[in-house]
Amino acid sequence: MEKLYFASDYMETAAPEIIERLAALSGKKFTGYGSDEISESAREKIRTAAGTPEGEVYFLVGGTQTNATVIDTMLRPYEGVIAAATGHVSVHEAGAIEYGGHKVLALPAEEGKIRAKDIDSLAETYWNDENHEHMVMPAMVYISQPTEYGTLYSLKELREISGVCRKWKLALYVDGARLAYGLSARGNDVTLKDLASLTDVFYIGGTKCGALLGEAVVFPKKGTVPHFFTMVKQHGALLAKGWAAGLQFDTLFTGGLYAKLGRNGDEMADRIRQALDEKGYVQDVRNSTNQIFLTLTHEEARYLSEKVEMGFWENKGDKVVMRIATSWATTEEETEALIKLL
Amino acid sequence: MEKLYFASDYMETAAPEIIERLAALSGKKFTGYGSDEISESAREKIRTAAGTPEGEVYFLVGGTQTNATVIDTMLRPYEGVIAAATGHVSVHEAGAIEYGGHKVLALPAEEGKIRAKDIDSLAETYWNDENHEHMVMPAMVYISQPTEYGTLYSLKELREISGVCRKWKLALYVDGARLAYGLSARGNDVTLKDLASLTDVFYIGGTKCGALLGEAVVFPKKGTVPHFFTMVKQHGALLAKGWAAGLQFDTLFTGGLYAKLGRNGDEMADRIRQALDEKGYVQDVRNSTNQIFLTLTHEEARYLSEKVEMGFWENKGDKVVMRIATSWATTEEETEALIKLL
Amino acid sequence: MEKLYFASDYMETAAPEIIERLAALSGKKFTGYGSDEISESAREKIRTAAGTPEGEVYFLVGGTQTNATVIDTMLRPYEGVIAAATGHVSVHEAGAIEYGGHKVLALPAEEGKIRAKDIDSLAETYWNDENHEHMVMPAMVYISQPTEYGTLYSLKELREISGVCRKWKLALYVDGARLAYGLSARGNDVTLKDLASLTDVFYIGGTKCGALLGEAVVFPKKGTVPHFFTMVKQHGALLAKGWAAGLQFDTLFTGGLYAKLGRNGDEMADRIRQALDEKGYVQDVRNSTNQIFLTLTHEEARYLSEKVEMGFWENKGDKVVMRIATSWATTEEETEALIKLL
Amino acid sequence: MEKLYFASDYMETAAPEIIERLAALSGKKFTGYGSDEISESAREKIRTAAGTPEGEVYFLVGGTQTNATVIDTMLRPYEGVIAAATGHVSVHEAGAIEYGGHKVLALPAEEGKIRAKDIDSLAETYWNDENHEHMVMPAMVYISQPTEYGTLYSLKELREISGVCRKWKLALYVDGARLAYGLSARGNDVTLKDLASLTDVFYIGGTKCGALLGEAVVFPKKGTVPHFFTMVKQHGALLAKGWAAGLQFDTLFTGGLYAKLGRNGDEMADRIRQALDEKGYVQDVRNSTNQIFLTLTHEEARYLSEKVEMGFWENKGDKVVMRIATSWATTEEETEALIKLL
Repeated sequence: MEKLYFASDYMETAAPEIIERLAALSGKKFTGYGSDEISESAREKIRTAAGTPEGEVYFLVGGTQTNATVIDTMLRPYEGVIAAATGHVSVHEAGAIEYGGHKVLALPAEEGKIRAKDIDSLAETYWNDENHEHMVMPAMVYISQPTEYGTLYSLKELREISGVCRKWKLALYVDGARLAYGLSARGNDVTLKDLASLTDVFYIGGTKCGALLGEAVVFPKKGTVPHFFTMVKQHGALLAKGWAAGLQFDTLFTGGLYAKLGRNGDEMADRIRQALDEKGYVQDVRNSTNQIFLTLTHEEARYLSEKVEMGFWENKGDKVVMRIATSWATTEEETEALIKLL
Repeated sequence: MEKLYFASDYMETAAPEIIERLAALSGKKFTGYGSDEISESAREKIRTAAGTPEGEVYFLVGGTQTNATVIDTMLRPYEGVIAAATGHVSVHEAGAIEYGGHKVLALPAEEGKIRAKDIDSLAETYWNDENHEHMVMPAMVYISQPTEYGTLYSLKELREISGVCRKWKLALYVDGARLAYGLSARGNDVTLKDLASLTDVFYIGGTKCGALLGEAVVFPKKGTVPHFFTMVKQHGALLAKGWAAGLQFDTLFTGGLYAKLGRNGDEMADRIRQALDEKGYVQDVRNSTNQIFLTLTHEEARYLSEKVEMGFWENKGDKVVMRIATSWATTEEETEALIKLL
Repeated sequence: MEKLYFASDYMETAAPEIIERLAALSGKKFTGYGSDEISESAREKIRTAAGTPEGEVYFLVGGTQTNATVIDTMLRPYEGVIAAATGHVSVHEAGAIEYGGHKVLALPAEEGKIRAKDIDSLAETYWNDENHEHMVMPAMVYISQPTEYGTLYSLKELREISGVCRKWKLALYVDGARLAYGLSARGNDVTLKDLASLTDVFYIGGTKCGALLGEAVVFPKKGTVPHFFTMVKQHGALLAKGWAAGLQFDTLFTGGLYAKLGRNGDEMADRIRQALDEKGYVQDVRNSTNQIFLTLTHEEARYLSEKVEMGFWENKGDKVVMRIATSWATTEEETEALIKLL
Repeated sequence: MEKLYFASDYMETAAPEIIERLAALSGKKFTGYGSDEISESAREKIRTAAGTPEGEVYFLVGGTQTNATVIDTMLRPYEGVIAAATGHVSVHEAGAIEYGGHKVLALPAEEGKIRAKDIDSLAETYWNDENHEHMVMPAMVYISQPTEYGTLYSLKELREISGVCRKWKLALYVDGARLAYGLSARGNDVTLKDLASLTDVFYIGGTKCGALLGEAVVFPKKGTVPHFFTMVKQHGALLAKGWAAGLQFDTLFTGGLYAKLGRNGDEMADRIRQALDEKGYVQDVRNSTNQIFLTLTHEEARYLSEKVEMGFWENKGDKVVMRIATSWATTEEETEALIKLL
């Protein structure tokens, strides 16, 4: 039997609808840098889906690039961004935020999530400190939906965070690298429209959600960042063939494809979760999206790793946590094959 | 008649060979960040073509990103990069080089080219200046092949520049955004192997030369930049689906496709150049690559622009210079249609 | 005879009035970071002298630091600063402006001065360029008064530059490292009040004008840069003992000391200029401030250099330009001794 | 009675020996940027005191500036600096380290000190992480001696830290803003020579230890940072009148003045500590240097604050921690007056 691949959600090419459409465009010509009609169509569809007719939408290429560009663009040099200590910008971007000159103000997180009251407390401490003019000013909150741990903020939690942000004039930014899996998840009550009404900027992930590449940055309020286009260029994040990213989202936002792709990942993960429960495995973090964190003995991990490519997550003494990621592309066959191995 | 498009060389999708191969990969899985087999195959083909079995090859996404990453990576903070005053890094990257903290030391250029003796003179002036420790230290030379004006450095010129660079310990970096059109051009005598032996780093352009996206950075000497991978990540330039860029180059460097695509652009341009000469038009810069700079009266420009999408280049009082760019995708039909309009 | 020192204007300690006052403060205590009473007194005197009762005044330590902090603070990341190609920020700050991420947009200068019409033309070219969103946006004009060549902008010239700046929404910043020598110069018609009404920010030089150290940044309009204090700190430019810089300016702006010190430098230079004329020497740039640019044969330069420490300025084939700088501290005796050597 | 000032250690002018010498220099001339004889004499005295005849010594102006310049200078862009979460670079430099592009990797600290085993563990975790190439690479350890809490690393602790640094190729940097109070403290066993042999770079604080301004950066090993001078300039940290900083250290390192000044601060603090103990006050952190952290009820704090200027340190519910700082200038009279108030 061939090895099963559940190591990450960016291992497959792209949704067939995207590849077919791309192939059909051979010989066509497009104007550059996102000024083409496909990109405009994609922007319009996203504005409609998010209920922000005046919103601004930009297509960038990858997650770290998007985070670095958005954060650097919205902050003044002395301002920092509050994020979970386990957040992507805190740990896995090789210092891209600091490269732009900004400090990541890490908050303790529980299963990847930070709490409104901790943000409130950090801001209050800052402004109450007699020496705050010698410190990095908190000016933005970064969260991801779903988080690095696959967990989701509820609408109530998001509203609380948004409220605290408005209280302290902190911009709220949501990293939606895996947003499809969040929107489609069991129990999720946060919609694109909620994101648009509660945040200052968010991005809809493409790379991990069925696109070949691309992330769609949405500023619900027009004019949030003057000259964002030029700053995208300055960050090396402007695609000459902008239509190539636009096409991804124009397709993903046609006929409910984005939701459908997300749902596939979530459902396959749910099946695996159920099987794990039935077989008595310990799951380190419970969520309803496309990531499963499986606690194994080292021996179990070794055995399973021979047949299944998983992600290593964390060493816990005599146990080890491995990550199983499903995706928009995971098939029922692969899922059943994995379950049989458990 | 539909409008003809000669405005730029990044208007088309990608070479059919690339699109077909991409389509054929549906359902396949790849490891991330360029660690896949297709990327490795592409790297090996480039190493072979450039005659650098020990060389390092990385795939980035676009030109500005590549320039910013390479330059920032190879320079110490107080070092600057020498470039033509008309070079891409000097003018059209929205300050991406300065964003990385580096000064572009502009040299006067003739038809886009800088001269070894001017580099020599700049370096000598710097080191002879009593106050040079208060100045930006020249540490790299940036040239493009072909240049922004479609002109080419001859092997003799490149050797001279390389010699001056070695004399003053300046790294030599060649931006090959349009390299295919240079390698295939009438009269060109600079090969990939020459680039590898005479420079410290260069990139082979994909975006403008038949790829959907992607630029291949080549360090002929292994270990030139320790931890380049991490710096690519920090610059937001690391593709999760690295295979997507690798696939472009693996295809372009199979069966001489890269050369063939370049030749098409050059030949179509040559036909147009010949027609222009026959009809008595003035061409502002003579070159043998895929860009034509056409001097027109404002009336002529207006007339022609109604039927042909061209690029605006420069206002010259009662005349205007327009740019006609052919590409790997320009057809004989389009070319003949354009010629008829002249 | 001991060697004469005319190499620069920052070779002496400080005006005796400053040293005496400093000595008299032994045992006194001050609150930190410029919150002390002496600093407040100095700020008030400067506000009065500049006719800006609402203006903000900050004391930094040196010229490059001040330029880098002010420019970086007032520009957005994609914005650049227009300056003379020979300006201090263009050449002699080791890339401090680029370190902050900003491009210096160099304009040709005549005797150190740039012209309103060249600024106008640069801004117009930028905004008329179809691709200006891919370029660094001009957002500030940097001039120095006096310039690096000791020349002065007339009130008429300054008004023209200020007008062009307002037309194109460019901030106007004046580097007054040697401002004392400008304010007191024969023929000068630009006052501190003119600077305050025509610029967005300027600095009054201390280091070269009689202070031990320190430069006074003046924002004529309150609230020009929110949180400037924090940005000064972030740039490493905040003095714990802020009173030490405040004391310099409190003293310099008492009893007309600043003007008097400037006048001494100018008058000593005038005497030397007159002697040079009488003896038939060629002066490369004519000005009325404290710098003299003397064209000599190499033999003359060698001879004179044995007895007088001068600054080397420029090699001109068989001639060499040397700089003679007088200062607030230059004595009549030194001046006469120099004149005798000519 | 006049109010007593124990709020910080940078409230006084400078040691009389420095002020007198400065006054005596009136009319003298010095070459610029630290090339003068006084600076050279100071460097030589420091090299001797530190037992590093080949070491390099540079004089900068303030602590944040020194930290930012040294750290930025020694790290590559993707590298970060390990520091106590309570360290100056972590909290009170307004993002100066991030402005240079570097992440501060915060370690939990106990009374301001970090432990060798925590450094070891952080480095090991990084290098063992499969994804470490996507993370900021730890490359330097920053500690302060004394720490922000006035505590001291013992020679044993410093050796352990140094050992771990060498094991993981981490540069070790010691911030000695208050080094005089550390060197002279009861129980201290770390000498300047130990710092020179165990670190890669450290600075000897002037501003808080009797100088008007200035910090002396010491690289025990010659050539540690090529072109450090230019990087100092680029960071706006180069004093034109370098002799002014040199003079501070030349005086401080003559006749044991630096040790004497430190001892005064420590002894006055010891007397206060003893009185506090006798009167039953709670001291939050015990140390033997010039800072005392006094736990008071809010009422006690209010009462004492009317008569003594102290620093606010931390709110602890119904208690508050106030900081009392003595200095090189604190007199016996002030000390006794404070003790009487307790």
